Formats: sequence, structure tokens, C-alpha cells
Amino acid sequence: MTATKLDPVQQLKTLLAGAPIGVVGLGLMGGSLALDLRGFGFVVNGWVHRQATATRAMERGLVDAVDISAVHLQNCGLVVLALPLDQLITPNEALVQAMPPGAVITDMGSVKAPVAAALASHLPRFVPSHPMAGTAAAGVEAGVAGLFQGRPWVISPSGQEDSTAVELVEALALALGAKPVYCDAKAHDQAVALISHLPVLAGAALLQSAATGGHLARQLASSGFADTTRVGGGNPQLGRLIAQSNRVALMAALDSYNQELKLIGQLIEAEQWDQLEQQLSRGQALRPEFL
Amino acid sequence: MTATKLDPVQQLKTLLAGAPIGVVGLGLMGGSLALDLRGFGFVVNGWVHRQATATRAMERGLVDAVDISAVHLQNCGLVVLALPLDQLITPNEALVQAMPPGAVITDMGSVKAPVAAALASHLPRFVPSHPMAGTAAAGVEAGVAGLFQGRPWVISPSGQEDSTAVELVEALALALGAKPVYCDAKAHDQAVALISHLPVLAGAALLQSAATGGHLARQLASSGFADTTRVGGGNPQLGRLIAQSNRVALMAALDSYNQELKLIGQLIEAEQWDQLEQQLSRGQALRPEFL
Repeated sequence: MTATKLDPVQQLKTLLAGAPIGVVGLGLMGGSLALDLRGFGFVVNGWVHRQATATRAMERGLVDAVDISAVHLQNCGLVVLALPLDQLITPNEALVQAMPPGAVITDMGSVKAPVAAALASHLPRFVPSHPMAGTAAAGVEAGVAGLFQGRPWVISPSGQEDSTAVELVEALALALGAKPVYCDAKAHDQAVALISHLPVLAGAALLQSAATGGHLARQLASSGFADTTRVGGGNPQLGRLIAQSNRVALMAALDSYNQELKLIGQLIEAEQWDQLEQQLSRGQALRPEFL
Repeated sequence: MTATKLDPVQQLKTLLAGAPIGVVGLGLMGGSLALDLRGFGFVVNGWVHRQATATRAMERGLVDAVDISAVHLQNCGLVVLALPLDQLITPNEALVQAMPPGAVITDMGSVKAPVAAALASHLPRFVPSHPMAGTAAAGVEAGVAGLFQGRPWVISPSGQEDSTAVELVEALALALGAKPVYCDAKAHDQAVALISHLPVLAGAALLQSAATGGHLARQLASSGFADTTRVGGGNPQLGRLIAQSNRVALMAALDSYNQELKLIGQLIEAEQWDQLEQQLSRGQALRPEFL
């Protein structure tokens, strides 16, 4: 006989024991999280920077209460920091001091080691996390229901947190339909440098090169080019923040990429067509492992 | 008053004066072309390599008649060579000799200068062309209706053909709903090196680099990675043929790409974040020009 398992939403409710969930920032990530959680019957309280955002968040039904101060966070058992990466890596003091004592705190930032380094010492129950989900949209209109459904949700405990803090963040991920993936912050940052940050640079460089092809190149580009450059043509502020905060891992990923391109270039230069085909075959065989 | 323009399908019918259209090869490109043309009421006759393909092409209704010899091409006014690139660049003698004297001949190959060089001297009414359309499928099952609708269709006359030959190929493109784009073969090859062939190498190299990230990288890869590597994880034989037949232009494109990546790497290395953001902003601004 297997033990009866609680439904993930019920499990999170049990762990929270009726306490509200706080969300700081109600853009794509925070808004999507809030929308799902309210849909499941949680009380969700927000803290945002601008009054217009607060007003619109209420109109959209993202939150039960929201303010441009931290007033509604005080009774929360869990607070999710859904802020831009720079505000997580160099948090202002007001943010840290506004966190309710005893609450479990997590974030949704796309780089983990510097966020952990910045927040863990101030917030003993901080558990770094990163849901691998998103769309191209941003701002208070961007949040959508079901964004995390079926997606990996990285949890990177430092080992210093109490286990119930980690358990609560895992319950959050499961309640939202995500798949918790445990790994240390540095391993996360190296992996996302390769599969998420390097593609931004690769696509951006491709756009610059293609631009040298004039009007004809623009006229002939098709869906293959559009796909290859989608993330490369994304938000430049986000690209900058990623490079700043994951610089070492991204440089290593870029080195590896330059090596692979150099090899391919050498094979074409030397007209080693069998070896080129082998190289492309390896790529073809690798791709399904990532899907 | 404007002159009354014939409907494109009617225009092609008028130019062909009842003669059938021949299609050599009934894979993705040839099969799709045949399917549309038959749907518009043209007589379409095929020539394929294997009897099984001929049988299946008849079952699918791709052609009115088909054989593993050129027997059904003899009365055709237009013959479309929908063959793999290597068979266009180093055509066998039987292919060239089987072309009906007087017929206009075109091809659908993705590189134009070497195809023109190989065929124009043997076939005075040969007009090189390249419809910019495709799917990942191949073989006699791959052909679909409407593949060329709204897509650019490059026509690269050498200048030696008679103008009615060029007019017929343009009428073919228009009848299929494509947008004719005239350019010389070399300009075509340089443009597609940048927007179509370079993305294959960029994506293939990305897959090799990402593979160094082990199980975690595979687990965390999301739709952005899938999009960026879609063409890079494609058919390795096609990648090889493209590199072989467009080697010089592709090497130039790769050089340009390496320069752009080097610049980006230098900005990250030197922590010149404003300049990096400017570079990424240029990519963001460029992308809509290609869509």
C-alpha cells in the first residue's frame, strides 16, 4: 500500500495554515503566479512600485490586496520576489527589511548564485528558485494563467535553510503544476548560460550579420530565420542583466560556442564534407534530448 | 483605365497553350507543386527514380502520369526540376538529354549560381528559380497543397534566356500564389548564406555547446532553445549539400558571424554593459525587418 498523497494545492494550503501569499512585483512572472494562486483559492497580497500598477492589478483580479508599500505583506507565510534581476542581486534595504519575520521567501530570478549571495545572509528562510517559463510580454498586463504548468521549476537551497522552508517552495511549484528540479545555484547558472543565455547572444549576432545582406536578405528571410533569432531579438535590458549577473558562466559558454563554430568553419574551409555531415548529424541527434 | 489583367492561373494556361507541365522528382517541393497545379486543372506528368514512388504519387493524386523513365515529359511545355541540390549541380547526362527540346526548364534548388553554371549551357531555355518555402518533411508523402502561397519565389535569369521563358516561370510562381523576386544568382546565394544557411551552422554549434551542460542543461531547456536550434538540428545531408554548393558565400557569412560574436564577447569581458545593451537593442530593432 502507498501512503495517501495530498493534492498539491491542498498540500500548500496545509503548509500555509491560512496565511496569505505575498507577491512583490506583478509583471509577467509575478502576475502569472498570482493569477493561478488566486484561482486555487489562496489569498494573494501584492507590493508594487507604482500606483497605476496597483490599480490595474486589482482590476485584473491578480491580487486580493495590493499597495505601493509593503503593508499587505505583514501576515504572509510565503513571499515571492518576482522582481527584475538587478533588484534581486543588489536589493535595496527597504525590500529586505519589509520581509515579514518568519515568512519563507523565494524569488523567480533567472540567475541563482548572485541572488543567493545577496539575499541569504539577510533572510534566513530565503530559498532561491527559478521557474523555467515565460513569454515575450512584460508588465502588469503580461500575467497569464497556467504559465508554469508542466515547466521545470529550479530550487537551489543553500543548505542553510530549514527543511520546512524548502518544502514550502516545492509545494508552491507543485501547486502551480510545475516540476521541481533541485540543483545547486552554480550548476543552475552554468546550465542556463548554455541553454538560455548563449542563445540570446547567438541570435543577436545572427541578426547583425544578416543585416549586412541588405534588402534582399530581409526579403528572403523565412520562418527558419525568425525562429533562430526569436530570443536574440528579445528585450535588450534583460540580455544585459543576464550577461552582467552570469558573466563568468556566459563567457565559458561563449568560448565553447566559438570552438564549435571554428571547427565547423575549418571543415568547410578544408572541404571535409563527410566530417561536416557527421558534425551536423550529431546536432540532429542531440536536439531531441533537449525537447 | 488600366488594362485587364488575367487571373494568374489563367495566364499560365494561356502561355502553356494546353501543354502539360513536367515535374522531375516528387518529394516535398515537387510533390507540393504538382498537387497545387493539378488542383488548378493543369495536366502534370512526373519522372521519378523509383517505382514505389511512382505508384504512391499516383495514389496520392500528385500527377496525371508518372514513370521511372522520362516518357511522360515529351510533350511538356514546362519542366520543373525538383531534385536534390547535388543532382542539379552535377546533373547526369540522361537528365539533360531527356528534357524536351523547346520546353522551358526551371529548378527549385536552394543555391543558384552553381545550378545555373551546370545547366544553362546545356539547356538554352533554363531559368534558375528558388521558391523560399519548405517544411521539415521529405519524400513522396511530404508534398502539401498551398506550400508556396505568399512566399518569395526567386527567379535568377542569366540574361541569355528568351524573355518568354522567364515570363513562363514568373507565371508559374504567380499561379502558385508566390511572390516573384528577381535577383542575380550570386546575390541570391549571398543572401541565403546569411538568412538560411548560416542559421543552420549557428544552431548546430549551439547544440554541441549545450551538450556540454549534461543532464541538467537537457532538463532545463525550454521553447527558446528549441526555436533557436530548429534549423540547426535539421537534415545533415541537406546541410552538407548547402555548404558544398554555397561554400564561398557561407564562409563569408560565417566570418561576419564570428566578428559579431567576438565583439559581443569583448563587451562582456570588459563589462561594457551600456555598449552591450546597445548591441542587443540593434538586434531587437533589426528583427522586424526580416519578418
